[in-house]
Amino acid sequence: MKSLNVSLGERAYPIRIGAGLLRQSSLILPHLPIPRAVIVTNVTVAPLYLEALSAPLRAAGAEITEIVLPDGEQHKNGETLNRIFDTLLAERCDRSTTIIALGGGVVGDLAGFAAATYQRGVPFIQIPTTLLAQVDSSVGGKTGINHPRGKNMIGAFWQPKLVLADTDTLHSLPQHELSAGLAEIIKYGLIRDLPFLEWLETSMDKLLARDGAALAHAIECSCANKAAMVAADEHETAQQDGRALLNLGHTFGHAIETGMGYGEWLHGEAVAAGMVMAAELSHRLGWLAAADVLRVRRLLERAGLPVRGAPLGVQRYLELMGHDKKNVAGRLRLVLLKHLGVAVTHADAPAAEIAAAIEACCRG
Amino acid sequence: MKSLNVSLGERAYPIRIGAGLLRQSSLILPHLPIPRAVIVTNVTVAPLYLEALSAPLRAAGAEITEIVLPDGEQHKNGETLNRIFDTLLAERCDRSTTIIALGGGVVGDLAGFAAATYQRGVPFIQIPTTLLAQVDSSVGGKTGINHPRGKNMIGAFWQPKLVLADTDTLHSLPQHELSAGLAEIIKYGLIRDLPFLEWLETSMDKLLARDGAALAHAIECSCANKAAMVAADEHETAQQDGRALLNLGHTFGHAIETGMGYGEWLHGEAVAAGMVMAAELSHRLGWLAAADVLRVRRLLERAGLPVRGAPLGVQRYLELMGHDKKNVAGRLRLVLLKHLGVAVTHADAPAAEIAAAIEACCRG
Repeated sequence: MKSLNVSLGERAYPIRIGAGLLRQSSLILPHLPIPRAVIVTNVTVAPLYLEALSAPLRAAGAEITEIVLPDGEQHKNGETLNRIFDTLLAERCDRSTTIIALGGGVVGDLAGFAAATYQRGVPFIQIPTTLLAQVDSSVGGKTGINHPRGKNMIGAFWQPKLVLADTDTLHSLPQHELSAGLAEIIKYGLIRDLPFLEWLETSMDKLLARDGAALAHAIECSCANKAAMVAADEHETAQQDGRALLNLGHTFGHAIETGMGYGEWLHGEAVAAGMVMAAELSHRLGWLAAADVLRVRRLLERAGLPVRGAPLGVQRYLELMGHDKKNVAGRLRLVLLKHLGVAVTHADAPAAEIAAAIEACCRG
Repeated sequence: MKSLNVSLGERAYPIRIGAGLLRQSSLILPHLPIPRAVIVTNVTVAPLYLEALSAPLRAAGAEITEIVLPDGEQHKNGETLNRIFDTLLAERCDRSTTIIALGGGVVGDLAGFAAATYQRGVPFIQIPTTLLAQVDSSVGGKTGINHPRGKNMIGAFWQPKLVLADTDTLHSLPQHELSAGLAEIIKYGLIRDLPFLEWLETSMDKLLARDGAALAHAIECSCANKAAMVAADEHETAQQDGRALLNLGHTFGHAIETGMGYGEWLHGEAVAAGMVMAAELSHRLGWLAAADVLRVRRLLERAGLPVRGAPLGVQRYLELMGHDKKNVAGRLRLVLLKHLGVAVTHADAPAAEIAAAIEACCRG
């Protein structure tokens, strides 16, 4: 088992990475203030892992309630959130009840936001079962739901007490979800870790073959990179760089997700296409060599990811990007690449260049 | 103008108390990161003070959006919250937009929770226009909404950047709302400030006559007492005493509010009856003299407050109190009085004594 710590002062917490962790109640029990937890999961994950998680906890004397939600990004909304609240209240859960998220990013975001706002905050544990959730949403404390007008528009920062990344859960993951996770993993290499990017280029075949050691290393490097950035900028308030760099490809990607309707593109797929757009724009601004743009595109392609944008039309992209949370005072702030491994935030890209980069990547 | 500071490290903020403050844009503008704010108010307050607040801000160049909600505790719910989100998104407000609450506790709780969760948190300013909001909800960072199964069940801690308590707004306050504010003011005396309690006994007539200086002093003492408690226990996590002591009368009071249906009793009225119950129970536990219970009851009566509980029946009280957030692991934790001016939390009161105290106070 690998372990790393997310350094957030009194909100610091450990991430454990390894095979079979969710079955080990001894890893979880020390983090519960009382032996009472509510596991939030979905209809896809429940048949695979819910019993494996809850049975040992119950055997150890914990009172466990299970909430099984529908699966899919389209359910990350206020209605589903209310289902969680209804159960918590019907079961008379108090402030010492721990909420455990068992599932991918949608389950984590919903359960985390419920934990952040139920009785103004209760303890939270994340057990991410997708590669994307293990390397992205399990670090950073972002929780929330979507609004018809935009993704993740309602939410809170709420740190878990513990994250368990059980690599065994990746064996049941559909191929396109594995690829979606690889998109975020590649992102860490692109924004701040050139040696890791090079390791990914040489290890992509192993990762696609779901080699346990390679996956654990990729998760550990990703979480360590993200944890360092989050520790320096917990609430994404740094004006320059800081946590905002984690959003490479996300402003373009959110436009794709919103424009196509939530659930049509996986988040990681949209981010992959968005990172190609960001690389293309970085090249047009004179920063990234054409060969490097190609290198980004090729690695993403090898990971099974789309490198072409959804055909929304440039105007629709720009309109949807206007709603992005990263904007400051109405200006479009983008994360771009100075070099491979060096990202910056930039609010001065000419609109014509942004449009040209989008168009080039939609043509493919 | 009186000023005091709520000491919460990087979340510290000032409270300004005085006449005519809401018209002074120069007090507000330095706290806006960009000159863009959304004022949330209700149909009762808007005709009285909205223009007085917004016109000077607009004249100073700020872009102001106004959201006018229906009035009343029954609207402190997810539906009204969504109205705020809808406007924020339609107006494309970003993370640097400040939300200003202009109104009583309901407006403050709703607007504050919107600020806590819109795009995971935006700046927030409170301009409380009721005595209750000026002495209670403007200090402490509690925000939230009600759920059909319980009051304030969904919420977050979110500190304002600034609180303006404009005593001019109290002239338009209905008498029973003034009294409701006095309930919380008396509470500070009861839990930790005997000299203030004695001042209240000698100054009650002035307060009821809305003497500006007396009101300003009462607001200042109340906020200072609450600020000291909040600074020591920002998130109400202290096991003993700490911020929990602010809930004197509230566990009983919440039962009255929920049992009678939100909006039937004012919060302060329910707290007043609840404080009599707490005093009665404290007496039954051998702590408070009978004469002191009478003194509590008499001061509340002079303030125009109910000292008799709603006729819900003891079983219903106990059932409703089981849902209270102050419970730890299912036990009923109550705030009681060791002496006048000295409160404690207590989880070991025998159920029979709790029932007897409720019954005695409902008989009157």
